[in-house]
Amino acid sequence: MALRYDTITFLSDYGLVDEFVGVVHSVIRSIAPEVTVVDLSHGIDPYDVRGGGLALARAVEYLCPGVVLAVVDPAVGTSRRPIAVEVGDGASVLVGPDNGLLAPAVALCGGASRAVEIADPRYRLPSQAATFDGRDVFGPAAAHLCLGVDLSELGPAIDPVTLFPAMVPLTREDDGRLHAEVLWVDRYGNAQLNVDPDELTGFDDVVRLVLDDHARSARRVGTFAEVEPGELGLVVDSHGLVAVVLDRRSAAAELGLSAGSAVTIEPLGDDRPAGIVTPVDLGPRRP
Amino acid sequence: MALRYDTITFLSDYGLVDEFVGVVHSVIRSIAPEVTVVDLSHGIDPYDVRGGGLALARAVEYLCPGVVLAVVDPAVGTSRRPIAVEVGDGASVLVGPDNGLLAPAVALCGGASRAVEIADPRYRLPSQAATFDGRDVFGPAAAHLCLGVDLSELGPAIDPVTLFPAMVPLTREDDGRLHAEVLWVDRYGNAQLNVDPDELTGFDDVVRLVLDDHARSARRVGTFAEVEPGELGLVVDSHGLVAVVLDRRSAAAELGLSAGSAVTIEPLGDDRPAGIVTPVDLGPRRP
Amino acid sequence: MALRYDTITFLSDYGLVDEFVGVVHSVIRSIAPEVTVVDLSHGIDPYDVRGGGLALARAVEYLCPGVVLAVVDPAVGTSRRPIAVEVGDGASVLVGPDNGLLAPAVALCGGASRAVEIADPRYRLPSQAATFDGRDVFGPAAAHLCLGVDLSELGPAIDPVTLFPAMVPLTREDDGRLHAEVLWVDRYGNAQLNVDPDELTGFDDVVRLVLDDHARSARRVGTFAEVEPGELGLVVDSHGLVAVVLDRRSAAAELGLSAGSAVTIEPLGDDRPAGIVTPVDLGPRRP
Repeated sequence: MALRYDTITFLSDYGLVDEFVGVVHSVIRSIAPEVTVVDLSHGIDPYDVRGGGLALARAVEYLCPGVVLAVVDPAVGTSRRPIAVEVGDGASVLVGPDNGLLAPAVALCGGASRAVEIADPRYRLPSQAATFDGRDVFGPAAAHLCLGVDLSELGPAIDPVTLFPAMVPLTREDDGRLHAEVLWVDRYGNAQLNVDPDELTGFDDVVRLVLDDHARSARRVGTFAEVEPGELGLVVDSHGLVAVVLDRRSAAAELGLSAGSAVTIEPLGDDRPAGIVTPVDLGPRRP
Repeated sequence: MALRYDTITFLSDYGLVDEFVGVVHSVIRSIAPEVTVVDLSHGIDPYDVRGGGLALARAVEYLCPGVVLAVVDPAVGTSRRPIAVEVGDGASVLVGPDNGLLAPAVALCGGASRAVEIADPRYRLPSQAATFDGRDVFGPAAAHLCLGVDLSELGPAIDPVTLFPAMVPLTREDDGRLHAEVLWVDRYGNAQLNVDPDELTGFDDVVRLVLDDHARSARRVGTFAEVEPGELGLVVDSHGLVAVVLDRRSAAAELGLSAGSAVTIEPLGDDRPAGIVTPVDLGPRRP
Repeated sequence: MALRYDTITFLSDYGLVDEFVGVVHSVIRSIAPEVTVVDLSHGIDPYDVRGGGLALARAVEYLCPGVVLAVVDPAVGTSRRPIAVEVGDGASVLVGPDNGLLAPAVALCGGASRAVEIADPRYRLPSQAATFDGRDVFGPAAAHLCLGVDLSELGPAIDPVTLFPAMVPLTREDDGRLHAEVLWVDRYGNAQLNVDPDELTGFDDVVRLVLDDHARSARRVGTFAEVEPGELGLVVDSHGLVAVVLDRRSAAAELGLSAGSAVTIEPLGDDRPAGIVTPVDLGPRRP
């Protein structure tokens, strides 16, 4: 049997302690045994739609063509729509809840060519449960798409402009300072900013990072290993964005950064030596 | 080469930090390279036979036919028997230690048609180790079963009635109150009870949950999102059992519940308004 | 298409929370869709080259022939060499950074027959990033090796004697005492020592373990379950080394052991009863 798609790339906030991920794998294999499931990540924080959407966006250019199954779904069982979104003129289909999770990846793929609400009971499990749509709705839809079921058979067409949009924070420039935000802290404690290297063109190699209640100088480097002890580095990371890093230590832990933290980049100026911690606020430091 | 079974579903308490799971995968692939291994979960708490058995039971109706390999084995190396249990007239075989781990799943599959003790040295690795039977005994047996080795070749037959039984806690009714127990707390903090929705037939929509040392009212809802802030919900979960839940927060963390915790469900009565925390005990709250 | 190798065994310190592992899987599958990737472990501590090398060494005799992809790479982006090392006259190839990570496994396979520096841009991704060589360099090289690209095509030959060596701690004997070291603490808290059972030949069944600041007696046992409550056991573990264990509890947590901890084994002598904790140092206990 020839498959329409032979790969399902699977991302969720299910974690790997419970059996949720394994059950979805089993359901897919029961419907479409020839399909390979690639687990992208199941470590998205529970309910973290933005974090899941960004992980998908970081990965999307490296994924095999096929079906992307993404489930971070705090409103499971409510009227939020289960959707399937075709991109690349059918090269791939993204399946998940219509809550913005898929939107950044869809945008990076050039936008949706078609979208449907997954509604036809023939392509879901007969379960009456309202709390595990990965097993009952999304996983089966992904498997049936691989088998050749056309998007239009899954349910009624949706105008792509009505899909829940991506919420990606933009930087803001103001009087020579760049107001940025942490998008992601990875396992090593590198803090990726929403900053393109081009946005640093006007700055010197050493800049000041103004954080919640203090400031630190940071130097632009090419690799982690170039960061000197006691120094912060700004590296262009593997996704082409600027990240705050330390060498073999967690910059995020040292600076108290997490996804969503505000970081302002400004010229160091001549009045303060590099490397000095500068208090900018007398209030208590966030725990 | 035609396989007798083409899928091994694998559950353990090995975790994913050490290389135990990967080594078992390698051993299986060395013996039976065409077999697909589906990882159900390796996050069972160390030595938690009951937790592993319940995870297997929750999943079993969704698994592909084939071999189920389950290893939670605190008595590895002792006289506890390594077993293979056939269910569904040979549709599937469960492989693991005879300590009750397999028993709930076997029962849900209609009971054992055949069982053997895994003993034949031809179907295990030559290792002399007594501490890693997943690698040396269970994984190889599962792989050989896939290749077509009959159950009877693995070792001497066992009368299925002598298998270690499942220990599943039953509810108890007493003067209009239902004494229940937490079976499972999932990643989201939902606390699954050993309560079938039918057992709540005589109760109002809002009931009182009596916990270790306090009480809370809870309302029956259809989805997580219906739970109002400050309110507890009782939802029929994806396995058809009643679970104590909050909307986008951990009910287990808020109430101090874990697997095995006692929960009594009783009518709210007219004397106490809903939503009020009612102390039922003057003793110190468990940390 | 016939594959030169059909299996890639993959170990890293990437963890399973971020999407790093999934992206490498996707990249491999995009290049060599017929190859199976077996995840050995991605839970190596960040930057822990020694821990990764030991995990690989513990597993290597159980791995399928093929390509081993190992990435623990604190110096990514620097002049440390990306390498591919052939063992077993081409039966397998190990791919990773030249920082000692591969060395213990290479030694256990009988040493390198050939080695190259991975340099040819045809076999890497076009990415300019300097921080994710698993995705851009090592994963693609592993996939191309599976497709039949010869080692010599990946880049210039390296004399195997110039490869970064393995650093494996040796025991030291001194006046009837054996100075050993913890190699690995597993999920269950068993503390594997760098001690071969033969090294215990001269000792009684009950010995004294001298730790950082105290001493405990320990008894040689065959299985975890033989360890009595309140007693420490020494078991020959599944890799043929001596491990300090408790029954169903973590010996490492109770004794404060971690990888690298020093443990001295000495005769119990007649002057002290077995099972007694003996302070050997008045200094504060490590937290």
